[in-house]
Amino acid sequence: MVRQFLVMLPGPTNVPERVYRAMMRPIISHRGPEFRELYARIVENARYAFQTSGHVLVLTCSGTGGVDCAVGNVIKPGDKVVAPIFGVFSERMAEAARRRGADVVEVPIRWGSAPTASELEPFISEGVKAVCVVYNDTSTGVTARELPKICELAHENGALVIVDAVSILGGDELKVDRWGIDICVTGSQKCLACPPGLALISVSEEAWKAIEDNPGRPFYFDLIRAREFYEERRETPFTPAIPLFYALDEALLMLREEGLEARFERHARCARAFYSAIEALGLEAFPEPEWRSNTVIAVRTPDGLSPSELRRIMRERFGILVAGGMGKIRDEIFRIGCMGVISAREVFLTVSALAASLNELGHEADAGEALRAAGRELGSS
Amino acid sequence: MVRQFLVMLPGPTNVPERVYRAMMRPIISHRGPEFRELYARIVENARYAFQTSGHVLVLTCSGTGGVDCAVGNVIKPGDKVVAPIFGVFSERMAEAARRRGADVVEVPIRWGSAPTASELEPFISEGVKAVCVVYNDTSTGVTARELPKICELAHENGALVIVDAVSILGGDELKVDRWGIDICVTGSQKCLACPPGLALISVSEEAWKAIEDNPGRPFYFDLIRAREFYEERRETPFTPAIPLFYALDEALLMLREEGLEARFERHARCARAFYSAIEALGLEAFPEPEWRSNTVIAVRTPDGLSPSELRRIMRERFGILVAGGMGKIRDEIFRIGCMGVISAREVFLTVSALAASLNELGHEADAGEALRAAGRELGSS
Repeated sequence: MVRQFLVMLPGPTNVPERVYRAMMRPIISHRGPEFRELYARIVENARYAFQTSGHVLVLTCSGTGGVDCAVGNVIKPGDKVVAPIFGVFSERMAEAARRRGADVVEVPIRWGSAPTASELEPFISEGVKAVCVVYNDTSTGVTARELPKICELAHENGALVIVDAVSILGGDELKVDRWGIDICVTGSQKCLACPPGLALISVSEEAWKAIEDNPGRPFYFDLIRAREFYEERRETPFTPAIPLFYALDEALLMLREEGLEARFERHARCARAFYSAIEALGLEAFPEPEWRSNTVIAVRTPDGLSPSELRRIMRERFGILVAGGMGKIRDEIFRIGCMGVISAREVFLTVSALAASLNELGHEADAGEALRAAGRELGSS
Repeated sequence: MVRQFLVMLPGPTNVPERVYRAMMRPIISHRGPEFRELYARIVENARYAFQTSGHVLVLTCSGTGGVDCAVGNVIKPGDKVVAPIFGVFSERMAEAARRRGADVVEVPIRWGSAPTASELEPFISEGVKAVCVVYNDTSTGVTARELPKICELAHENGALVIVDAVSILGGDELKVDRWGIDICVTGSQKCLACPPGLALISVSEEAWKAIEDNPGRPFYFDLIRAREFYEERRETPFTPAIPLFYALDEALLMLREEGLEARFERHARCARAFYSAIEALGLEAFPEPEWRSNTVIAVRTPDGLSPSELRRIMRERFGILVAGGMGKIRDEIFRIGCMGVISAREVFLTVSALAASLNELGHEADAGEALRAAGRELGSS
């Protein structure tokens, strides 16, 4: 039997019982009325989560599949694309664009920070087809808070903005229509607190024009076909992962019941509790203060301590999963997901286990102090 | 609440309770030991199902996603591809190849039959990169029984063979290594009796050479990356649909317990029962006799009867789902899945409901005669 862990990963995350059980609803035809009703409701509630009145479509694939879909539909070979690089997921997005034959201008940004509009300004001019931005880079735990300004800058220069919001949508502010994000992608297994296997993607009117103008768009990921099937019949072009659609439906209902504002505030409060506790433990967050994410908490491992050893103890002794580093900072950090099912309970359990694990590895860490620091941020919630 | 139907569709299909419940196992890290053990076992058992000692990889997407992946990894723009067209799914495969920039030679084959090697011979010569064959076209209910000969012909001319086996693998004979299929794709929701959302893909040594030689292969569907992650760590490159992996694991365990031979015989027996019952009801199978599939039963709707009306009564009155037609024969046929969870029980229930529905629509049909005909084929099983 597989053990039931507290899944404090930056995806997949803990899934509420209600969402998990929804997967057990009966198998139905994806060409019948039950599915149409299901998909229509999912899209309606996804629009709320994306803060858009435009199209949101659901794809059976991972979040990266959704990003690949976005890039493949918009980009034609030879198109110029600007991509600020500040973590593994921004590297991935640039690579996806290169695979489509784009001329990718990478703008290196210090890891632990996120791009500002003024850093990108010299690179964005007429002739740039799209700016590819990771709004929350899961590998470094930073949020690109200047995204609205970057959208403005891009639009002034006639460029589209494609946003990877996989590890943040539903956990922090993200106004697709207001900010003018042309394509926004998220995954089911992050802040929506659903099992992995689905990507959600929104498309603006301007983006549709570019997609319609791209006959070489991918086949499985063809967004025009997905839009047609949705508009004409509330269906997907190809067989969808029905149990995951049931789960996503339930997860989005829960999100609506809570409301976006309350949900963002809850994530922010728990993130503040994590950052305060980490400081109280004598540890340091990886990102610079102004860029710290509310959904992914990246922490520098103290000198002489191996992140994998720390993670092993948290897992084996306490049944808590946290993630290691990725890419060039693989051995320097560990990461805690602050996503979806996140409240005082998850924060206290994780902080306690972290403190005890540090002690076990010979590093002084005051659990009491850390819990008090977390508690001050959490208030009476 | 969604009603529990008897799902006699050619996918998705009925899922055994044991497989369905497997989805409820705990969420785990896709970068941890539990997932590695799970994926390794899935691949091992999938090799048995594919009858291959080569690589089998699992992708989070539909069966069509798997076909698109196959084509996208092997085909480079300008490559010559031969595609016999005899149903909607062969049309789809040709379209996927065209989207990759292939020069696709379509060979039209009479719908209701399947390509023979001699029909394809004039089109397959040196310089053809790949032959794309749908082994079982779900839209017409035919099986391309000359596939082994087509593989031989292709290899004599230096071409690879890419096979869409989505609606047949696990339900009828398919020897990937013995027949020399270079890439074979199936989906989770057909004869493997698993929920939809995963594709499985096998790759031969010759196919790997072509893929390695294709730098423009897709990003999310990059098979080299999938192979590396599997070989180095028994992981997938991107977050997999964990609950569906649990279900697939259980479904493949069930397949091994039964054994391929017994499973094929069971599907063939139930298919014979369906075809006999259909004849006894005064109906006609759509395909010519030598090409009739053991996994998808396509039936011509009697004159003056609408397939959608027939399906509506079967669904509303009897809770049984059967499928309509697709493509140019949309209004001429209905289709019954004979896949996965298929035994005397499913055959009898479906035949009884079909007979009663025909009667209700004013068509004479002798249920007793049909059930006796089915029973003769089913024997004492």
